[in-house]
Amino acid sequence: MIVELVAIRTGLLNGSQTYEHFHFLAQQCAEIGLSSYYQSIADEDQERAEAVIRTALDRSDIVIVSGGLGAAQTDTAKHACEQVLECKMEDALVLSGRESAASGYIVEKDKKVVILLPDNFDECVLIFTQQVYPYLQARQSEVCYTRVVKICGMEEAEVREKTADLQREHANLEFYIYTKPGEVHIRISGKAGNEDLAKELVKPVVKEVKNLLGDVVYTTKEKNTLEKSVIKLLKKYDLKVTTAESCTGGLLAGRLINVPGASDVFKEGFITYSNKAKRKYLDVDKNTLKKYTAVSEETAKEMAIGGAFAADRDVCVAVTGLAGPDGGTEEKPVGLVYIAVYAKDSVQVKEYHLKGTREEIRQRAVLEALDLLRRSILKNYQSRSDE
Amino acid sequence: MIVELVAIRTGLLNGSQTYEHFHFLAQQCAEIGLSSYYQSIADEDQERAEAVIRTALDRSDIVIVSGGLGAAQTDTAKHACEQVLECKMEDALVLSGRESAASGYIVEKDKKVVILLPDNFDECVLIFTQQVYPYLQARQSEVCYTRVVKICGMEEAEVREKTADLQREHANLEFYIYTKPGEVHIRISGKAGNEDLAKELVKPVVKEVKNLLGDVVYTTKEKNTLEKSVIKLLKKYDLKVTTAESCTGGLLAGRLINVPGASDVFKEGFITYSNKAKRKYLDVDKNTLKKYTAVSEETAKEMAIGGAFAADRDVCVAVTGLAGPDGGTEEKPVGLVYIAVYAKDSVQVKEYHLKGTREEIRQRAVLEALDLLRRSILKNYQSRSDE
Repeated sequence: MIVELVAIRTGLLNGSQTYEHFHFLAQQCAEIGLSSYYQSIADEDQERAEAVIRTALDRSDIVIVSGGLGAAQTDTAKHACEQVLECKMEDALVLSGRESAASGYIVEKDKKVVILLPDNFDECVLIFTQQVYPYLQARQSEVCYTRVVKICGMEEAEVREKTADLQREHANLEFYIYTKPGEVHIRISGKAGNEDLAKELVKPVVKEVKNLLGDVVYTTKEKNTLEKSVIKLLKKYDLKVTTAESCTGGLLAGRLINVPGASDVFKEGFITYSNKAKRKYLDVDKNTLKKYTAVSEETAKEMAIGGAFAADRDVCVAVTGLAGPDGGTEEKPVGLVYIAVYAKDSVQVKEYHLKGTREEIRQRAVLEALDLLRRSILKNYQSRSDE
Repeated sequence: MIVELVAIRTGLLNGSQTYEHFHFLAQQCAEIGLSSYYQSIADEDQERAEAVIRTALDRSDIVIVSGGLGAAQTDTAKHACEQVLECKMEDALVLSGRESAASGYIVEKDKKVVILLPDNFDECVLIFTQQVYPYLQARQSEVCYTRVVKICGMEEAEVREKTADLQREHANLEFYIYTKPGEVHIRISGKAGNEDLAKELVKPVVKEVKNLLGDVVYTTKEKNTLEKSVIKLLKKYDLKVTTAESCTGGLLAGRLINVPGASDVFKEGFITYSNKAKRKYLDVDKNTLKKYTAVSEETAKEMAIGGAFAADRDVCVAVTGLAGPDGGTEEKPVGLVYIAVYAKDSVQVKEYHLKGTREEIRQRAVLEALDLLRRSILKNYQSRSDE
């Protein structure tokens, strides 16, 4: 069965808004095993809304329309659907959310289905998850099972090359390789008559990929993030961590704490943006700062050691760098970042040359810090019996 | 002139990727003054790519295609364009980026224009800004001038109501009101023969809106963010700030530091996630934590005072709350957040009840903290002569 997502939202066309709906809905539909070849967006004009809904209905079995519902948007999507389907929404299956009695609709006509969802993202997620997902799943004859292999520390081209043979061997499965900032993901999907059979197709291949690529794979579960993997490892080896941040200024700690239950392993962090603060809170040597400057291997090292001692923790990650846009020199250009991890009485430091805007450089530094932390824990604490 | 954005990208259809291109390109096109009624997405299949490009070309003057260029995507978009336009890309105007000589193309045919842009977002931004923007601007007869009024602390419905008369009075301008998490924005656009004339239409109305809504307006400039406004105010009144964060765990400091030059006013911040850390670094009283718990007005207050004293700063913002998903009680539910601002020897504390996931609650708390900080500075330091 083929699904097409449609949005009716002027804000997308003039660039004043971003839209999370398509990303969420596309993920959910893929999980159910629906295929999707097109997505369409129109502004809040009824004729144009009708045009995109009509086209979508011609080439798909299921059309999911988001936006254009409610008084503020003069119910454009609702009226457009009524025109295209020649029906009244009173006859439709009404979907009710938190905020109003009628937050969405499901209309069946001539073996096709049109689903209208609200513009408010939380409402949309709630209604889809509770009411639309089971409705769509019940209409599917085959079940689709998908796993994601998430990779940090290997380029896309290398991942493609290393997995090329394996992909050919398993032509019955679908492989989709793509990049996220600093990461490469591989989606592996298989379809079968029931979930257990679909799982049996996919799971051994996920294991093969993991063995093939080694410890650059940080998870094979959709919901796992890099920070979740790190927190899990810290808990496993009963370690407490602290952070000493300069250019990332709290973003690293902020991401670690985003994992529920992070409080078991993380108690406090240091944001030491100025040289004085690096000395006061992390005991970085005045001469180190003078001789090597704040953005140096030496300073990163002392920050990591100082943070671990000041907070009395097993592990400390320190980040210092130049996020720009100003302040770069030929010797120390914008994007130069040092990350140090203190663990088991020793410090590992790495130098990075990151690209992008100030925000991109800082976000990327956070990612690299999480990855270096993960690898340091594995290197220092993983015993052979674990593997 | 009408523009339509097209993307050729399988990852958008199975939900494995998000796409920044449309948001950026739509903003840029609106700035140039192009109208846009539709956007279309297809997967990396040549026939379907041809179909969306053909439809877009039928209903628009300019079609901008992103994605589907390069070897990894087998140049689907390029081949599709050649088919639809019956041309070879060798005859097109070649756009060159950082990474390769031919990163994009401009093709003119029968008074219509098709522009192909690379999938890599940085490349796309670079090429668009340097080569496509001036090209498109030169084709426009009217110039469009847009300003954005950004509001924090007033609901969308109230903003709509308060500006309704003003919108009617200025029917020659375009008003677009929309929400961002915790914020309401109003885009006001005017078109005229040249930029000065367009500015003359828009600027007085922006001022009127500002006067009408008062200090909930934190900026009227597109590129300004809430954190930029805060840093600007701190610099204006020559104040140094520090942060004391529990549930936001560094995200607040992280956002402040995202402003280039933040180092003038921000030197260090405290991430005190555990009770022990709140006592050790911020000198919060043991009895306060025992009697009122960590998530209370009293603790927030002591965190703000303690942070200001420990770091010897003029102003300190403290955040403590329950981000969930677990740990909530009837008395202290998930989403309960206290924010305190210490300034001029006094502390202001506010209680918030925020909704959403753990991440949403934390991000929203950061926003509210920035807004409370902004208002506190205005209240405590703004003199009458400033107004």
